[in-house]
Amino acid sequence: MTENQGCIEKEMDSSSNSPFVSNPHLKLLDDDMLFHIGMKAGDHQNLRNVFGDVKFVCMGGSTSRINLFAKFIQSELKDYLKGDNEPCNLSKSDRYVLYKVGPVLAVNHGIGVPSLMVILHEILKLLHYAEAQDVKFFRIGTSGGLGLEPGTVVVTRTAVNALLEPFSEQVILGKVVRFPATLDEQLQKQLLDCSGELLTAVGDTMCQGRLDGAFCDYTLEDKLEFLQKVYDAGVRNIEMESVCFASMCKRAGVSAAILCVTLLDRLKGDQVELTPEMHEDYQMRPRDLLLSL
Amino acid sequence: MTENQGCIEKEMDSSSNSPFVSNPHLKLLDDDMLFHIGMKAGDHQNLRNVFGDVKFVCMGGSTSRINLFAKFIQSELKDYLKGDNEPCNLSKSDRYVLYKVGPVLAVNHGIGVPSLMVILHEILKLLHYAEAQDVKFFRIGTSGGLGLEPGTVVVTRTAVNALLEPFSEQVILGKVVRFPATLDEQLQKQLLDCSGELLTAVGDTMCQGRLDGAFCDYTLEDKLEFLQKVYDAGVRNIEMESVCFASMCKRAGVSAAILCVTLLDRLKGDQVELTPEMHEDYQMRPRDLLLSL
Repeated sequence: MTENQGCIEKEMDSSSNSPFVSNPHLKLLDDDMLFHIGMKAGDHQNLRNVFGDVKFVCMGGSTSRINLFAKFIQSELKDYLKGDNEPCNLSKSDRYVLYKVGPVLAVNHGIGVPSLMVILHEILKLLHYAEAQDVKFFRIGTSGGLGLEPGTVVVTRTAVNALLEPFSEQVILGKVVRFPATLDEQLQKQLLDCSGELLTAVGDTMCQGRLDGAFCDYTLEDKLEFLQKVYDAGVRNIEMESVCFASMCKRAGVSAAILCVTLLDRLKGDQVELTPEMHEDYQMRPRDLLLSL
Repeated sequence: MTENQGCIEKEMDSSSNSPFVSNPHLKLLDDDMLFHIGMKAGDHQNLRNVFGDVKFVCMGGSTSRINLFAKFIQSELKDYLKGDNEPCNLSKSDRYVLYKVGPVLAVNHGIGVPSLMVILHEILKLLHYAEAQDVKFFRIGTSGGLGLEPGTVVVTRTAVNALLEPFSEQVILGKVVRFPATLDEQLQKQLLDCSGELLTAVGDTMCQGRLDGAFCDYTLEDKLEFLQKVYDAGVRNIEMESVCFASMCKRAGVSAAILCVTLLDRLKGDQVELTPEMHEDYQMRPRDLLLSL
């Protein structure tokens, strides 16, 4: 830990006493309510039975896309699973959906860093209580591309924040703390090696909030100049969760990758101009790349 | 606009050419896809017919709570509306829900600032295209309380960020920009004046991301010391969207209030320990205060 101009930069705590979590207060709790999925840790044996064999956590923003993903995994694994029942949403809250299909846990994370953070904390605790092992985490999502043909799946090299820094920043008890947002290089390489004919690219992913819409104070020229600078720095797509996903996975000591399809080329404009069929097709591409692993 | 240590502080643009929006690029668009509610601005006449009479926008995090809210408004207004059809979700995307009941537009915003920002941009543009007038905005939500009996509805005086500053901060084209997060004092007073027997309080609301869960590096003493400092500064509840909601409404030039019920007293612990019935009852209280206006 180094202190620098009021900011504290944190490296992963290598003395962490458990995979997934590093919170000494958890063992002092009588029970742990995983509020946003409506589950109590309570009887760990039950969580072990249901979630102990999870090997892959796959997260995306939208509930319906995660539902489709779970159904697809179910049909792909039906011989192995000895049955083809429709996957059932195990979340007892309306905030997020959660499907368990064989070794795959499929969860939506909503939009933006705080929404992802809430559910990822609960998933990490769930896997901790369930004593799962050797779990890989994937974010499969959509994004705006930079200088790429729409429909390209970008495998993220490093997630960077809106200032192009490879950190996730959080204010903890009044102090700004930074967590590195680098990802598993080996996993990136594996994904790229098996991409086959799928349109793929590798590059940094910039994580930022929405810049305009109802309000905009900058000119088109300002924006294009900025996007070109971002492209020149190695960024190939822009979305809203990567920096938090990468840094939390790193902090938890789990292997992680981010695969987002580009819906448009932001160097050419900001409106998504896809037919519903193209939109549907593009959204499935990160899943297809993941399944080719 | 003043420049200060790399940050730009913005006051509301009083020369804004329209209520709701201030974006000269909008009129250059052939059409405007409100992507996250799946509506095209396209034919403005249609938007005027459906949304032109909106007077109240009511937002909350959860989809099911907004659905219940819309049903309740429908039953309260059934004589006025000449019918008691179930309210219908007008959003064509699975990201957010959107109900229109008489003069009320009820919309969920998900969890956290970026999620709220995405939908609020689209709602402001929707009302702009619909040429709605004199619209008031309310966030009715849940929160963690400080030094208050659980179930208290806090009417926010000012929203503050996690550094206790009354600003929303955004990185726009690589520069940190701050927007004031103050609210309509008159509306606060009106709400408090009509609160009757409902447990209410007024105070600042701190907006922050999730601090712990899977990871925690600080002690219970550190946390309580920090929360006491926050309480002493005038904060009475903590949630995850207020600073953005307040600053965007101010920027749009619309009157806004935030009414959040407290589900627990964070000075006494972090677990929500309510029966489902109490949880249900508490969640309805901001709505009840709003309807007493």
